[in-house]
Amino acid sequence: MVRSPAIYLLNLSVTRNAHQTVTSETLEVFPFQPAEECDVGPLGNRIVRINAPLGELTINYSATVELHADVVDSTNVCETSYEHLSADVLSYLNPSRYCESDKLYRFAFEEFGQLLPGYSRVTAICNWTYEQLHYSPGSTGPTTTACDVLIQRTGVCRDYAHVAISLCRAMGIPARYVSGYAVNLQPQDFHGFFEAYLDGRWFLFDATRLAPVGGFVRIGTGRDAADVAFATIRGEAECTGINVWANNANQNDQELNSNDVQTGVSSA
Amino acid sequence: MVRSPAIYLLNLSVTRNAHQTVTSETLEVFPFQPAEECDVGPLGNRIVRINAPLGELTINYSATVELHADVVDSTNVCETSYEHLSADVLSYLNPSRYCESDKLYRFAFEEFGQLLPGYSRVTAICNWTYEQLHYSPGSTGPTTTACDVLIQRTGVCRDYAHVAISLCRAMGIPARYVSGYAVNLQPQDFHGFFEAYLDGRWFLFDATRLAPVGGFVRIGTGRDAADVAFATIRGEAECTGINVWANNANQNDQELNSNDVQTGVSSA
Amino acid sequence: MVRSPAIYLLNLSVTRNAHQTVTSETLEVFPFQPAEECDVGPLGNRIVRINAPLGELTINYSATVELHADVVDSTNVCETSYEHLSADVLSYLNPSRYCESDKLYRFAFEEFGQLLPGYSRVTAICNWTYEQLHYSPGSTGPTTTACDVLIQRTGVCRDYAHVAISLCRAMGIPARYVSGYAVNLQPQDFHGFFEAYLDGRWFLFDATRLAPVGGFVRIGTGRDAADVAFATIRGEAECTGINVWANNANQNDQELNSNDVQTGVSSA
Amino acid sequence: MVRSPAIYLLNLSVTRNAHQTVTSETLEVFPFQPAEECDVGPLGNRIVRINAPLGELTINYSATVELHADVVDSTNVCETSYEHLSADVLSYLNPSRYCESDKLYRFAFEEFGQLLPGYSRVTAICNWTYEQLHYSPGSTGPTTTACDVLIQRTGVCRDYAHVAISLCRAMGIPARYVSGYAVNLQPQDFHGFFEAYLDGRWFLFDATRLAPVGGFVRIGTGRDAADVAFATIRGEAECTGINVWANNANQNDQELNSNDVQTGVSSA
Repeated sequence: MVRSPAIYLLNLSVTRNAHQTVTSETLEVFPFQPAEECDVGPLGNRIVRINAPLGELTINYSATVELHADVVDSTNVCETSYEHLSADVLSYLNPSRYCESDKLYRFAFEEFGQLLPGYSRVTAICNWTYEQLHYSPGSTGPTTTACDVLIQRTGVCRDYAHVAISLCRAMGIPARYVSGYAVNLQPQDFHGFFEAYLDGRWFLFDATRLAPVGGFVRIGTGRDAADVAFATIRGEAECTGINVWANNANQNDQELNSNDVQTGVSSA
Repeated sequence: MVRSPAIYLLNLSVTRNAHQTVTSETLEVFPFQPAEECDVGPLGNRIVRINAPLGELTINYSATVELHADVVDSTNVCETSYEHLSADVLSYLNPSRYCESDKLYRFAFEEFGQLLPGYSRVTAICNWTYEQLHYSPGSTGPTTTACDVLIQRTGVCRDYAHVAISLCRAMGIPARYVSGYAVNLQPQDFHGFFEAYLDGRWFLFDATRLAPVGGFVRIGTGRDAADVAFATIRGEAECTGINVWANNANQNDQELNSNDVQTGVSSA
Repeated sequence: MVRSPAIYLLNLSVTRNAHQTVTSETLEVFPFQPAEECDVGPLGNRIVRINAPLGELTINYSATVELHADVVDSTNVCETSYEHLSADVLSYLNPSRYCESDKLYRFAFEEFGQLLPGYSRVTAICNWTYEQLHYSPGSTGPTTTACDVLIQRTGVCRDYAHVAISLCRAMGIPARYVSGYAVNLQPQDFHGFFEAYLDGRWFLFDATRLAPVGGFVRIGTGRDAADVAFATIRGEAECTGINVWANNANQNDQELNSNDVQTGVSSA
Repeated sequence: MVRSPAIYLLNLSVTRNAHQTVTSETLEVFPFQPAEECDVGPLGNRIVRINAPLGELTINYSATVELHADVVDSTNVCETSYEHLSADVLSYLNPSRYCESDKLYRFAFEEFGQLLPGYSRVTAICNWTYEQLHYSPGSTGPTTTACDVLIQRTGVCRDYAHVAISLCRAMGIPARYVSGYAVNLQPQDFHGFFEAYLDGRWFLFDATRLAPVGGFVRIGTGRDAADVAFATIRGEAECTGINVWANNANQNDQELNSNDVQTGVSSA
């Protein structure tokens, strides 16, 4: 329910890149409003801007996406030495709003400093996060940070990602947040996971173990959840319902590389 | 150096109780000022109030104390059930300024919930605190809390005590802060440690392992360090030097039950 | 609904003191359980301890109280000089869990340092708190502190009290939290307000302006809300409903000095 | 003093852009080490990477820069409407590590919501920040955030910038952090200030009033100080001295558009 003329920034369109081919995509707004699409930054984030009139507003987004994940043998994937990190990756070592890695150097070093560097160390960070935290919807809010979560030991997918990202950065491993859809996520919702930079490329990780990484469909990429909010609203509006679902269009396809992602955001 | 007429509240006189016999005690103020002594609360805290004139001020406190610690076999010391805690002890389960036990229920339960209740569980909390933290003077300040310390993993004696107190309270074990002198503390300084309430009485603990508990001389007791600041100054003054030392007057006495405590606080 | 045998500590019985005469009082527990009453500390706090069995539990508390408030001309009520504060009052200058006055010295001094000391300065602190904050149920939670509230600018009665207490303490005015019932509070609920120590005695204040101070019935007194939780539960239980109401038994009595306070806490 | 082989990332080279012509520039490392220069991101940030051997290390950076500031009549500079913000500017509305604008919506709205939008509103935010805060070196540290500063009311240049940035973002005005040199800054040091996005372009602001904006020489641009640390060191090293100075090479030039910036960072 839009109570004063409002501007919506929606970040729920899937990223188009080499790993995601969008074979069909629709965005419907009821009542009809023009939707301006903006590409934000070099990472493929796509923002849709809508001027919403008073009254009920319904937004339906639907896409069919073919996933072409690179499956890599992680055995020998090493950490990229600090002296070889490319310039565009360096900023993902900086602390960010919800990932206070600058407070966690000793914490991270003592928990993970003795482990062998590489893909397995990021896996260890994910395992540790999974084991320390209790998944509890409603236990955290929009201003909750990784350090808050490390104290209270509960959170949701975004909090798991923030904790793991913070620990990676504190260890000198660039890490960033990814918002997306996840096939077979229970209960169905938007999802938040993360990427770590290893051996010259970005690898997907998810500390929640809620859905297979192979079925993740990327929406946005950023330093943390602050960069990829699903909806930012300027004006007065009340959300009366959100429905998200992601299905594997090819039920026989065990590798989850073709997905039908649909989302209906009813903000009225 | 007192820059405007100031009022000092000093909490550095040793507590007089059944475990500490003060055989001699002097407090000297240069230049001479009358020092009013106030007994604060039921725990034996003694505050000295001084109206300080402009200029240099030197305060020397010296006491000889006989310690009569009860040495108890801790093997069978149990936790007091919540339903049997006496009313005056219940407030030591509440969170306090530097001990946010209300944020740490899950944290404490997951780390210590599987251990057998009793003295040994408090010892386990002390050991964990000792192992997790790195003793680092200057790494924390007067507003640092237990949760801050659990994230940054460094602190000084007061921080170790705050962490252990918070974890005890979160487990349902009443705990409180004790300020004092400590024989053989290196380097010599004021000390901060804590008490936990077990089996109907208070037991001393110190998570820092910096000095033997048998040589602790109690100054003040409170919920946390906020209650037992060594000096509270109302007005403008600059501290130009503090010297504290505590010696065992009877060098052959291995049990540390007679101590000569001296402190010189030069605030000028 | 009690899911495992639980122990309840209830702090909802009204304080008995010179200003409150309890003419009748009942506490009923369904199904019947023995309720042990403990007097906690020197301030008249009364805690009721109940061992709750599995299943639904209903607790009804009802009291009729005659209020004998001292009405004092506040014109010449001064602040008590730091050098004359009695020893038992000094601890109410210390920061506490939800009142981080130690962070607010400059803040308080700059906002209120130029005002004339005395009752009117505490009134100014209440007015400022009222004007800065927006009363918003649900905007804060059990771990929210005064500093949190000063940033987010929203809260409920307990938050208003914590802010005002913190600012008083930072100005050198002892202040403490009071939980209670309030006649004509809309909507009816428990209430939280505070006392400041001026001219040798404690005065009631309420920064929310939600109900007349003359109709406040004191339950508990403490450093902040941590000391006077209405219910502390050890075990698993779910609260399914709370009803509180406070009426003026003598409808013609404009001075609100006789009140019929009733509360029904249905925790089942 | 480098205690183990360390990698230095230095961000102290001035940005080369349309407003800053670098007419000469030298970077010297003693003992000699190759210095790799990386351009980071689209904002002109330049990072120098050095592999530092054991022992003393001295780094001298010196540049002569001609400044070509656009001087604009600010009278009619408006805020850019949310619906017209270009995609690359939107991320500067997001909260960041030291600028928790997401906590400050109400705070900002109540302080600045009634003011006319535009350049003058950002000036009002700067004035308010200047008046609320007390400039106090040493009062804050590397993890201090804007919200911390709003409570404690003291800080240094970086803190002033973080507060003003946070308030701008909370008001819907994109804002970002700039590190730099400042001619006539007393005492000489690196400086931190900020830019706000108004009327389709970025404008420089400084809430500290410590030096004229016309003499600012840009080093780096980022979301907050986390993005433009002057030195990031991977390894063990101890900084034994930093000297920074910025002079106006043309003493008769009142408009500060040609500056000789020199800095000597002795990290040994």
